[in-house]
Amino acid sequence: MVNQRMYELGSEPSAIRELFAYGLARKEEIGAENVFDFSLGNPSVAAPEAVKKAALELLEMPAQQVHGYTPAPGAPGVRRAIAESLNHRFGTAYSAENLYMTVGAAASISISINALGAPGDEFMVIAPYFPEYRVWIENAGCVCVETPARIGSFQLDIQAIEDAVTERTKAVIVNSPNNPTGAVYPECDLVELANTLRRKQDEYGHPIYLISDEPYREIVYGDTNVAFIPTLFENTLVCYSYSKSLSLPGERIGYVLVPPAAADAADVYAAVCGAGRALGYVCAPTLFQGVIEKCVDVPCNVDAYRENRDALYNGLAKLGYECVAPQGAFYLWMRALEPDAKAFSERAKKHELLVVPSDSFGIEGWVRIGYCVDRAVIDGALPAFAALMREYQAESL
Amino acid sequence: MVNQRMYELGSEPSAIRELFAYGLARKEEIGAENVFDFSLGNPSVAAPEAVKKAALELLEMPAQQVHGYTPAPGAPGVRRAIAESLNHRFGTAYSAENLYMTVGAAASISISINALGAPGDEFMVIAPYFPEYRVWIENAGCVCVETPARIGSFQLDIQAIEDAVTERTKAVIVNSPNNPTGAVYPECDLVELANTLRRKQDEYGHPIYLISDEPYREIVYGDTNVAFIPTLFENTLVCYSYSKSLSLPGERIGYVLVPPAAADAADVYAAVCGAGRALGYVCAPTLFQGVIEKCVDVPCNVDAYRENRDALYNGLAKLGYECVAPQGAFYLWMRALEPDAKAFSERAKKHELLVVPSDSFGIEGWVRIGYCVDRAVIDGALPAFAALMREYQAESL
Repeated sequence: MVNQRMYELGSEPSAIRELFAYGLARKEEIGAENVFDFSLGNPSVAAPEAVKKAALELLEMPAQQVHGYTPAPGAPGVRRAIAESLNHRFGTAYSAENLYMTVGAAASISISINALGAPGDEFMVIAPYFPEYRVWIENAGCVCVETPARIGSFQLDIQAIEDAVTERTKAVIVNSPNNPTGAVYPECDLVELANTLRRKQDEYGHPIYLISDEPYREIVYGDTNVAFIPTLFENTLVCYSYSKSLSLPGERIGYVLVPPAAADAADVYAAVCGAGRALGYVCAPTLFQGVIEKCVDVPCNVDAYRENRDALYNGLAKLGYECVAPQGAFYLWMRALEPDAKAFSERAKKHELLVVPSDSFGIEGWVRIGYCVDRAVIDGALPAFAALMREYQAESL
Repeated sequence: MVNQRMYELGSEPSAIRELFAYGLARKEEIGAENVFDFSLGNPSVAAPEAVKKAALELLEMPAQQVHGYTPAPGAPGVRRAIAESLNHRFGTAYSAENLYMTVGAAASISISINALGAPGDEFMVIAPYFPEYRVWIENAGCVCVETPARIGSFQLDIQAIEDAVTERTKAVIVNSPNNPTGAVYPECDLVELANTLRRKQDEYGHPIYLISDEPYREIVYGDTNVAFIPTLFENTLVCYSYSKSLSLPGERIGYVLVPPAAADAADVYAAVCGAGRALGYVCAPTLFQGVIEKCVDVPCNVDAYRENRDALYNGLAKLGYECVAPQGAFYLWMRALEPDAKAFSERAKKHELLVVPSDSFGIEGWVRIGYCVDRAVIDGALPAFAALMREYQAESL
């Protein structure tokens, strides 16, 4: 008697959440220090002091002002601050009117899909991909079209994308730095993608949008450059969140940017406002709109993630695991030691290693290891990964 | 090239928002003290000191804990605290597992509709009604069926509801204390409604739910009793928000309660979780989940609203306006001085009075006056209402 699709979505928890719940129970049983939980993307680095300082300052202001409704697209001050910050960093010319504040990246993407898509329209995702993309696309009555990345490097396969674009393609969702692979798309590939999409736009006579999901924009290592996609392809909507860069995942604060150069920009922006309204959003949390206004240029501290990445990647490589060297985000993508990633993940559990099988992300044979954890978890896990490897080696003899 | 329905929702702002925007511009022109803006439901009473104290305490805790993801249905602590508070006040036996924390009442209702409704199902609303109900119902592919309240008292017309129930009726949305009329439904009427719905359930062989939208539950005057509807009708989902009772409208924090006695309660709860996921919600803002845990029993201060209500209602009645005496919420519902409420609202504007025409709420000939304002606005407005009355009287001579 309830909506069957909603019931199924709610009663079949994601593999990630299920593994996380298993980990919590297991930690109760054998002690937290004996379980190596790499299941989630919950930042291990604390929010910067500047966030606390901003919140404390705001709480001293008149409460009606701090906690009142803002206009649905967000308070003018924070939208202006974000526009100025983007303009300063990327040489753009955005204004507050191009920004719509949201309750985090999930809301940003869900709203963007609903704003653009009519039932039957196609949204392309690059496998492996964040599994909720499919949920939001299908909830809008649209079709989720999976196009694989290049297995090995997990970079864009632009020919495959070109081949998969049809007359019904409304948008392609890209995510760089990537969850789950840690890949960062180089500018040259994004330029090629832009040219491909422009050709297809000409062929079909209507715009094809890029939805750039970029909560990890600031989380990169070494001299990796993260291109700002709207400067390469005009029809790009940016979906951002401060969950990772400012370690505020629970506060649900982010935005959609509709660049003025995008095709039908005014209509798209209006549709974004309409989709927010239709889905039940009213405004982004007011206190954290104020915090972001004050913290928009606070740098993201990636030192701990870099150290984790180096320790984990080098450790696993030395043990003989095939890993993608993460250029950004805080996930390491590793080939399972048997073709069935779920079976591999189950065997890893016996060694108290919690890693997410790639099936959740739309491909087979790999696992995601979230290294946004205390360093001790990595140091403790490496001997367990060694034992797991020995177990597989012994069997293959 | 965008979703046409979303474009329309986003580009045609609600009458309320439009009036509010007009008021802001007008205040710039002639000074804020000369504009009597009754358009919004933004609480004029500040959040209680306890809210600030709770937020300050939380901000001293480790940041990962304060700002991290919670489980999708909310942190166990706040859900337990709310369950215990409800049990204490209403003699119920709820537990944390019956509660799903949301980003405010709009999210609560949107999620409940999506959880229950399949395309083509009917949701009944009692006119006049909060206009976004229709938006959320139609966004779920369902049908919004308007049933009028009894004109004059604006109490439930239970015969009309009975006549309008069909085999496709999935739920009836009730809102007491009511926005926009200020009416509170007496327990005897709710018992009669419950009996009617039970009869209809038997007739059609499936449950019919009540969705009780009750952000104004604590905002009542005199000895008015607000019945707790799940204790009268088992198939009731409660959609609550702290926007009004704790003056936190911008922070977006509320819940859905699925009582264990409701038909298919476990399935409904799972579908609520699924609908939250499908619409792009991840969790309610973490800091304010913590604030609510600490403030769940902080009393709502209605003194200022009561004084406003008395001054406004007595003042308007003395001038000869026909008003519904508000029993709760902070809206006064007044008959327009001509059948066309929009025309009346336009003429009120000439006297700098901003009142919302009833057409937005699904009936003709009345206006909503939101008295969650500074007392000075009411004192300044009464002479303007007097002048408006004289203008109409002069014309009818």
